[in-house]
Amino acid sequence: MHGEFSLGELAVRFGLGLNGDADLRVSRVATLSHAASGSLSFLANPRYRKQMAVTRATAVLVGPEHAADCPVAALIDPNPYLAYARIADLLYPRDPPAAGIHPSAVVSGSARLAASVSIGPLAVIEDDVDIGERVFVGPGCVVQRGAQVGADSHLMSRVNVCAGVRIGRRCILHAGAVVGADGFGFAPDAGSWVKVPQVGSVQIGDDVEIGANTTIDRGAIDDTVIEQGVKLDNQIQVGHNVTIGAHTAIAGCVGISGSTTIGRRCMIGGGVGIAGHLTIADDVVVTGCSLVSASIRQAGSYSSGMPAVETRLWRRMVAHLRRLDSKER
Amino acid sequence: MHGEFSLGELAVRFGLGLNGDADLRVSRVATLSHAASGSLSFLANPRYRKQMAVTRATAVLVGPEHAADCPVAALIDPNPYLAYARIADLLYPRDPPAAGIHPSAVVSGSARLAASVSIGPLAVIEDDVDIGERVFVGPGCVVQRGAQVGADSHLMSRVNVCAGVRIGRRCILHAGAVVGADGFGFAPDAGSWVKVPQVGSVQIGDDVEIGANTTIDRGAIDDTVIEQGVKLDNQIQVGHNVTIGAHTAIAGCVGISGSTTIGRRCMIGGGVGIAGHLTIADDVVVTGCSLVSASIRQAGSYSSGMPAVETRLWRRMVAHLRRLDSKER
Amino acid sequence: MHGEFSLGELAVRFGLGLNGDADLRVSRVATLSHAASGSLSFLANPRYRKQMAVTRATAVLVGPEHAADCPVAALIDPNPYLAYARIADLLYPRDPPAAGIHPSAVVSGSARLAASVSIGPLAVIEDDVDIGERVFVGPGCVVQRGAQVGADSHLMSRVNVCAGVRIGRRCILHAGAVVGADGFGFAPDAGSWVKVPQVGSVQIGDDVEIGANTTIDRGAIDDTVIEQGVKLDNQIQVGHNVTIGAHTAIAGCVGISGSTTIGRRCMIGGGVGIAGHLTIADDVVVTGCSLVSASIRQAGSYSSGMPAVETRLWRRMVAHLRRLDSKER
Repeated sequence: MHGEFSLGELAVRFGLGLNGDADLRVSRVATLSHAASGSLSFLANPRYRKQMAVTRATAVLVGPEHAADCPVAALIDPNPYLAYARIADLLYPRDPPAAGIHPSAVVSGSARLAASVSIGPLAVIEDDVDIGERVFVGPGCVVQRGAQVGADSHLMSRVNVCAGVRIGRRCILHAGAVVGADGFGFAPDAGSWVKVPQVGSVQIGDDVEIGANTTIDRGAIDDTVIEQGVKLDNQIQVGHNVTIGAHTAIAGCVGISGSTTIGRRCMIGGGVGIAGHLTIADDVVVTGCSLVSASIRQAGSYSSGMPAVETRLWRRMVAHLRRLDSKER
Repeated sequence: MHGEFSLGELAVRFGLGLNGDADLRVSRVATLSHAASGSLSFLANPRYRKQMAVTRATAVLVGPEHAADCPVAALIDPNPYLAYARIADLLYPRDPPAAGIHPSAVVSGSARLAASVSIGPLAVIEDDVDIGERVFVGPGCVVQRGAQVGADSHLMSRVNVCAGVRIGRRCILHAGAVVGADGFGFAPDAGSWVKVPQVGSVQIGDDVEIGANTTIDRGAIDDTVIEQGVKLDNQIQVGHNVTIGAHTAIAGCVGISGSTTIGRRCMIGGGVGIAGHLTIADDVVVTGCSLVSASIRQAGSYSSGMPAVETRLWRRMVAHLRRLDSKER
Repeated sequence: MHGEFSLGELAVRFGLGLNGDADLRVSRVATLSHAASGSLSFLANPRYRKQMAVTRATAVLVGPEHAADCPVAALIDPNPYLAYARIADLLYPRDPPAAGIHPSAVVSGSARLAASVSIGPLAVIEDDVDIGERVFVGPGCVVQRGAQVGADSHLMSRVNVCAGVRIGRRCILHAGAVVGADGFGFAPDAGSWVKVPQVGSVQIGDDVEIGANTTIDRGAIDDTVIEQGVKLDNQIQVGHNVTIGAHTAIAGCVGISGSTTIGRRCMIGGGVGIAGHLTIADDVVVTGCSLVSASIRQAGSYSSGMPAVETRLWRRMVAHLRRLDSKER
């Protein structure tokens, strides 16, 4: 089920440098410390350099600066992690899912399904849904009234695409993701809340990946927009009318409040909270567990995650901070 | 599918002031910046005032203080967002779901279902469940043994109501919500953990809304209680034996530890963490990403969310805070 | 459906001290404040001592230090909460689920199911899955290609075990949990991202409990590992190639970034964020809402959760902290 390739073939195919025997063959990937003969490993994070020194991999993908240190054959590329991603994809080809509709799936007669779609067991496809070529809809997925899923997208399992949502091409949605539930909109009325109808939808661009149990709310009036190439990790919450710019990557457990616009190519660390109605520029990095409470107009790195220290020391630090206030008053 | 109404009709029906031609008609809502002819927009947040100046909406709902600035017809109310919510509900009527049980649903013979219920495809209704009039149970929902769902409630899709849970009337539960899974209760026993049976349940009052992938644990002994009119956003975690008072609204990604009691009409910002065994008074506001680690006895606004700054500045701020401790010792 | 036992029987069976009439009988558990005759309660947290003084329970489980204060019969153990857990388990026996496969479940012909398994309605069991004796697979669960579930484990409902994942014996997975979705791995390529195949899997040891809507990603190359006896609350995110040591307990809403190793018997509070590629020693406690951004080499308690104060005071505290920087420059 795996492919097997010689280092020479890989070097030619991916334009890599090679130190070592071009006839050596690899059939799988491995970490530096767990590699055995026949494995290809890589060094992307210098903190694993010591492990390279004793690796049993047949070959290691390295940057040119580490090629001389590699004790086994080296495939050399300035971006070894990218080269690794491409070779791993070659070594572990995913079988295209067989076309067809599982007999236990519930598919509306008014849904338009391309001939090559694969609809898994116990999936639900409601009225007027439109599903493109080679789309995979896994077990237990629900695609609701009028939603669209672009060609070559994968809804892995138990994914919920709500009414009217539009998913681009080559997207991957992982288990438990919910796209298009109502946004959190209520108008105060004398101590109670009146629901504000959420009449917008969600637009997901091409090549977007959405992690397990991540939720993206439909817009209140206009749509929530996730542009092409955005990568969202697990358990992220995206509020109504948020826009996330192309190729932005967001780590797990981030919450983004309504009507905020995030630029392109941003990187948002895990656990970050972003307030509503803000604008964040392109190429902004926010480190983990920060709170973004005001717009960020300039590219750069931003933080407010407080590093944990011993609890006794932390209690004193908090007390000092409070005391600063008493002193100045 | 949308309604269409004249401004005069709307003014009479909702008791609004009107500047402009009472015969103008609107059939949909729009944001100020994306409105076209035939649209009704609103101004609730003053930061969007500039957009009102150039809107192409047929009419705008405004507070009296902004009526003079409105370049098109104005419907006037002291609470324009509330008026908007009500008019949007009128313009976008939701069809009541057709009564009936989808043939693919699995419904226990001992479940009591009102004649007007709508049970979607691949839903599961277990033994002794009780479901009231006009309840909608969407595709893939699971309602477990002995649970009750009050009249006019909507379980949107893939909602999980666990055994014995009681849901009030007119509630809305969004996709992936889980109500009544076991609380996190373990007794330490010489380095390992013994599970504490979670024998309580969950009571959800009337008019409660529960967001996508939000989880509410069943009580350890007594019940977890969500009082009437509470609004919970997505991805909230409510621990066992928490009580949330009537009409409290909680934004996304909040975690509430076990046995804490939150008062009425509180507003809890996104990403807040609340420790266990606390009491929080009525009418408390907690701003986003704060940690509530002690009871709050008085109404008011509370915070500890640290605003992000440039990473270099942030590192210095953390170092200064640590240095305060060395200085004082 | 409940058992009923005399205090004498319970004292003998669990090796407890007894103050009071050995013939008194209890048939259910109750909190101190809501107990009625026939109930057994317990005092584990001293903050509930006042409630013991007025309890109507028939008996209370207490530590020896509180036995004299107990106004009703007392069962006495140095660890009353542990004794409570065991007695509650006796009083509320769970019926073993009836063996069998619900006719609406979709079970692959190549799956190996022990004779005593219970597969609920609308569950999906894919090819080459291996399910041990007395395993319960609840409604709407999905167990994917090649996954293994050890004897006596319970997948409560709508649980998703992805391809190739191995679950130990006596595990409990709650609703909406996702084990084995792809990790968040992308290589940067000139402003966009290339997916890195996630070819590892997940190994879950024996006696692990996994909360509702918690997600555990499959490894990028090696496996993600959750050792025996680990207890995970709801809405936790565990990144790829994380290892969590035996008997560690983690509260709700924690996020753990990829390739971090957490020791044994750790206790991680709610809302904590843990950065990637770190090592955390055995017996570490991290209090709620802290950010662990560096490895922790020594057992002990660590914190950085900032306690909420009045918003006005908090704003001044933040301003003082920023001013420290200007002063020193």
